[in-house]
Amino acid sequence: VTKFEHGVDSASKGEYRHYMLKEIYEQPEVVKHTLEGRISQDKLLEQAFGPKAAELFDQTKAVQIVACGTSYHSGLVAKYWIEELAGIPCNIEVASEYRYRKTVLVDGTLFITISQSGETADTLAALKEAKKRNLMGSLVVCNVPGSSLVRESDLCILTNAGPEIGVASTKAFTTQLVSLLMITIALARRNGLAETAETELVRQLHKLPQLLADSLELDQAIQKVSEQFADKHNALFLGRGIMYPVALEGALKLKEISYIHAEAYPAGELKHGPLALVDADMPVVTVAPNNELLDKLRSNLEEVRARGGQLFVVADDKTVGHYSDDHTITLNEMHSILEPIVFTIPLQLLSYHVAVLKGTDVDQPRNLAKSVTVE
Amino acid sequence: VTKFEHGVDSASKGEYRHYMLKEIYEQPEVVKHTLEGRISQDKLLEQAFGPKAAELFDQTKAVQIVACGTSYHSGLVAKYWIEELAGIPCNIEVASEYRYRKTVLVDGTLFITISQSGETADTLAALKEAKKRNLMGSLVVCNVPGSSLVRESDLCILTNAGPEIGVASTKAFTTQLVSLLMITIALARRNGLAETAETELVRQLHKLPQLLADSLELDQAIQKVSEQFADKHNALFLGRGIMYPVALEGALKLKEISYIHAEAYPAGELKHGPLALVDADMPVVTVAPNNELLDKLRSNLEEVRARGGQLFVVADDKTVGHYSDDHTITLNEMHSILEPIVFTIPLQLLSYHVAVLKGTDVDQPRNLAKSVTVE
Repeated sequence: VTKFEHGVDSASKGEYRHYMLKEIYEQPEVVKHTLEGRISQDKLLEQAFGPKAAELFDQTKAVQIVACGTSYHSGLVAKYWIEELAGIPCNIEVASEYRYRKTVLVDGTLFITISQSGETADTLAALKEAKKRNLMGSLVVCNVPGSSLVRESDLCILTNAGPEIGVASTKAFTTQLVSLLMITIALARRNGLAETAETELVRQLHKLPQLLADSLELDQAIQKVSEQFADKHNALFLGRGIMYPVALEGALKLKEISYIHAEAYPAGELKHGPLALVDADMPVVTVAPNNELLDKLRSNLEEVRARGGQLFVVADDKTVGHYSDDHTITLNEMHSILEPIVFTIPLQLLSYHVAVLKGTDVDQPRNLAKSVTVE
Repeated sequence: VTKFEHGVDSASKGEYRHYMLKEIYEQPEVVKHTLEGRISQDKLLEQAFGPKAAELFDQTKAVQIVACGTSYHSGLVAKYWIEELAGIPCNIEVASEYRYRKTVLVDGTLFITISQSGETADTLAALKEAKKRNLMGSLVVCNVPGSSLVRESDLCILTNAGPEIGVASTKAFTTQLVSLLMITIALARRNGLAETAETELVRQLHKLPQLLADSLELDQAIQKVSEQFADKHNALFLGRGIMYPVALEGALKLKEISYIHAEAYPAGELKHGPLALVDADMPVVTVAPNNELLDKLRSNLEEVRARGGQLFVVADDKTVGHYSDDHTITLNEMHSILEPIVFTIPLQLLSYHVAVLKGTDVDQPRNLAKSVTVE
């Protein structure tokens, strides 16, 4: 197993204006480190996760994920993956909710926690509570070796993202996603995923660093789009299916560092309330919509377009098509399994540039701390 | 079984300025109708739910709830109840998400849909999809007899709220909660709920109409508080545990009719991002906090208080205590099982009065329709 060595430079901003921007740009590289030694050309090498991994995955009949903030969003992506590819039930809950209520743990539950620091107080407390019960096993996805969550868990999958200094998490999120996708493959190969399908997924993972690098080339275009947000105080982010958590994470970034009140909704819920909010002051950002979603959305938005409602679309080659009258950010076409990871980058860049325009303290947003080690 | 007869008056505003206000005030009465014939002095009369009810509840090993908008929020309350009191796993998902992804249905799943109209397109489609699979049985909580969801379901529990004209749902929500609490008791008595505990819960249910009537007497005090929101464009609603969905519903009401961008968070997530938003323009409404939560919250808010952050607390006699420097709305003390239902009323009144002050079209908010019968 190759280990990522953090040199002196990983804690300096180098050529970048902010740690956050540096960390956004590190993603092709750190994702490579997350994958290193854990996939061959066409297979998951799950022995790299340690001797206990196979045993735990063999016994897993259900998954319970517990996390906070950005890590909760990566876990929500994993829920979609695990139910889709492994066909086993996966629940997820924010740690501060999970730990205080009487929850039901079904037999054979693998309890997964996700935390950049490994010290998130509510997540740690939730794990300790769960361990007192009929837990089959626990796994943590974490960026800090030797942290409390690592010590408390049966199994640890390190994200190998290197130190993350910016309070708003970026490379920790994408490397969590990569780690969770590998866990999904490990579970899926025990639950009907064909070898050829695993090979296809692994080959896609090899393409990921380059796709992330490609997405960073949109930086200037996104900076241009960000000007549209400089005078805004509110925004809606919409996604559907596995892109809903990506929308949640995009909205959280904008909240955290630009102080724009951005809120994410599953696109289908728009008509059940939030559509009343849409006017010239409420831009709508849609993430990776398929054409069908965009069609439905546009018919909703037509009635508010008269009031100046603006639609921003993050799409790829195959979906962007004839929607050229909206503001679009277009990524290269990719396999759908990679979309939640790659589509995150434009949203990180958008929030970064909006924050710079607003003149906020990008790396140290007001009221927030990097690791929430108190309850 | 007594049936609620909807007279001519139920479709007129009568003495009220808006249908919404009339419907808020009808809640003590319609909740009585929801309970009528379904509880004795100290027991649930589940035979009132029809001959199929006992059979379905006997076989239920897990619950899957699917709904949209306000109905999704009542379902989220039910998830907390069902796991706490019946100890069986309960999942909930918005219909537009559930129907389009590959989900896992465990054996013995009771599939519960919730919809005021019984015609919500995504919910109906989700039920039809689920019926093609290994569904043990289906139950709808609905306000309209003979509607599509009623026809498609094995079992229907009518909310008996009478016609709801205001687009923003009020009495449909609280009667859904009452119906879901009765369903919870039916499931819990099969899963370890002692007879004495059932008796206690049913006796509490008998107190509900009076507690709702009491809460309406806060109307003038809430109207006074609403003035603080008249110039606001944003708000955060916080709840913890079973009061989190109540906060979600409170925020949705404010969104729908006052066009204030109100967003709800589980209180423990505040430090993981949204705290960056809190300043003088972002009032924070907390629902039914226990003292422990308020203590934690206050330490967060102290740092933003300097920037003018204002805290609004909906509490009851036993928790309000020494928090007199914040804006408080205080309800009479009640059993915790009733809190999600009764604490909803002040939030409905708050959104109503804010909307009136803002001069919006309360009963017909812009962009929204009463029943979302398209996808």
